[in-house]
Amino acid sequence: MTNVNLKLLAKELNLAVSTVSRALRDSYDIGEDTKRKVMALAKKLNYEPNPYASSLRKQKSRTIAVIIPEIVSNFFSLAINGIEEIAQEKGYHVLIYLTHEDYNKELSIMRYLQNGRVDGVLMSVSSNTDDAEHILNLKQRNVPIVFFDRVCENVETAKITTDDYESGFKATEHLIQQGCTNIAYLSISKYLSIGNKRMHGYLDALRKHKMRIVQNNIIYGTNSNEENFAKVKKLLQSKHRPDGIFASVEKLALNAYHAARDLKINIPNDLKVIGFANLETASLLNPSLTTITQPAFEIGKRAAMTLFRSLDKKNAPIINETIILNATLIQRDSTKKQ
Amino acid sequence: MTNVNLKLLAKELNLAVSTVSRALRDSYDIGEDTKRKVMALAKKLNYEPNPYASSLRKQKSRTIAVIIPEIVSNFFSLAINGIEEIAQEKGYHVLIYLTHEDYNKELSIMRYLQNGRVDGVLMSVSSNTDDAEHILNLKQRNVPIVFFDRVCENVETAKITTDDYESGFKATEHLIQQGCTNIAYLSISKYLSIGNKRMHGYLDALRKHKMRIVQNNIIYGTNSNEENFAKVKKLLQSKHRPDGIFASVEKLALNAYHAARDLKINIPNDLKVIGFANLETASLLNPSLTTITQPAFEIGKRAAMTLFRSLDKKNAPIINETIILNATLIQRDSTKKQ
Repeated sequence: MTNVNLKLLAKELNLAVSTVSRALRDSYDIGEDTKRKVMALAKKLNYEPNPYASSLRKQKSRTIAVIIPEIVSNFFSLAINGIEEIAQEKGYHVLIYLTHEDYNKELSIMRYLQNGRVDGVLMSVSSNTDDAEHILNLKQRNVPIVFFDRVCENVETAKITTDDYESGFKATEHLIQQGCTNIAYLSISKYLSIGNKRMHGYLDALRKHKMRIVQNNIIYGTNSNEENFAKVKKLLQSKHRPDGIFASVEKLALNAYHAARDLKINIPNDLKVIGFANLETASLLNPSLTTITQPAFEIGKRAAMTLFRSLDKKNAPIINETIILNATLIQRDSTKKQ
Repeated sequence: MTNVNLKLLAKELNLAVSTVSRALRDSYDIGEDTKRKVMALAKKLNYEPNPYASSLRKQKSRTIAVIIPEIVSNFFSLAINGIEEIAQEKGYHVLIYLTHEDYNKELSIMRYLQNGRVDGVLMSVSSNTDDAEHILNLKQRNVPIVFFDRVCENVETAKITTDDYESGFKATEHLIQQGCTNIAYLSISKYLSIGNKRMHGYLDALRKHKMRIVQNNIIYGTNSNEENFAKVKKLLQSKHRPDGIFASVEKLALNAYHAARDLKINIPNDLKVIGFANLETASLLNPSLTTITQPAFEIGKRAAMTLFRSLDKKNAPIINETIILNATLIQRDSTKKQ
């Protein structure tokens, strides 16, 4: 009896061995017609796949990597919980890598992942990442990547993000409605698209309400909490001190609180503060903090679901799309009108 | 010319090949005398190690795993930063695994690590881990393990922890000194040794000050924040409501704040609260929270240093010792005397 193997099937059907193999695995890149033909012949000839070869071929790490800039952030903690919920369902392990907002660390992690340690990557880029070479390299090695929150615009893949522009606009307009006339913006970094989108929302809200844009009112944060604190304090000591602060991330809002306390500036009477934050303690702060709260858990979940849609289909290409989940403005005492 | 290899050296010295190999690698388990003899002969005969075999032998993942119960905790975030500082110096990658306080998840992670994915493990056990079988299994496969904070008493290895008993005693005595006469204790779990040590400190402080020990005043937290909140709220609605709460972890202290606010119980006038916490916002809360603050960054650093002392010496056994770093009581408004 002839040994019915891939080669024989391929010869009978006048197809390449790799095509037959992929058709039998129901691969996305083989047409339905071809699949039907291959399956039919395989059935007719009682083809049995070689289990050893098949297991080798299917060998997967069953592990995904989550690359994030920092861990002392409720946004990322919650997003990771969302990612883990999906990974658990799929029976995958989750490895968390921290870049500590360091481009070089990010580079080294991406290189480390090139040898197949993980099946896919979920990523939020570091605040000083201004090129995408290292990310594209990994993607070219057939490791699917999905971005969440801090995306890299020039990598073609799915990006799960928040309505950053609209939220920046809403936050600023809220401060204006509460009586602020001189509003500062605290940005995470010059490079991050989310920081810039939030800033464009801020600028457009000022323009809409015919308010002057003051360059000194725009502060760019760094990786050092001490430096950020000093910058915010200096801003609050300046001659034309702002009466409103819109912080683009949690830690900068807390810097504003600490600086105001040091300088005995009363929030909300002398200074109103609103910030992007997923702080569990926002409502317990003195005064409670008005926040733009991102659906962090949901963002993590959607990012993981998008990645697994590719992994489940043998690394089917990921659609180059941006999925935008809405943030919520939660008004509390830090922006209260006198 | 004879090929000078390990076998020849071993034959000449009447030693086992493995002994010669380990002596040449300066392994800790070979005596200095033997090492000297082996080195001398190797030099005399111009022995050159086979670079390929050597590289294979030395093949390491250059990766350590950090296994922690949860990520939404400033203690663990800071400890991880301490671990990463050391790992970075050593050129190692750090993988973070979350057990989500789930024993079965912890089990599955330990099994997953058995195949040499990582060179060593830093671990804080989950709150419902009540046996050590899975940890001992990994240890037997020559993967060194160091515990930090939440240790497993019956695994012989290094444990980096806080002065939990003394801190529990101090926290309780502080509440007594501030005028409390009916003090509740919020524990993380029945199983964790740190929770029990903190409780023993609490009980001994009550005994020292001749205060009655009330069973209903001891609450055991669960993995569910909602459940914990309900338990604390119920405690504060009871007939003999406590006038002081000592929370053994951050999240339980925040539950006490939320419950008191819901019930319009004034902190610190009607209820004083002290808690173990590394909250960045402790001083910004309303009222600011009196904390027992662990040197979390330092604990992570020491744990990593202890692990690398073993890894640097080809997995030299880790001394079975407990290293205790002291926590600090930081007095704020939540325990203020009227």
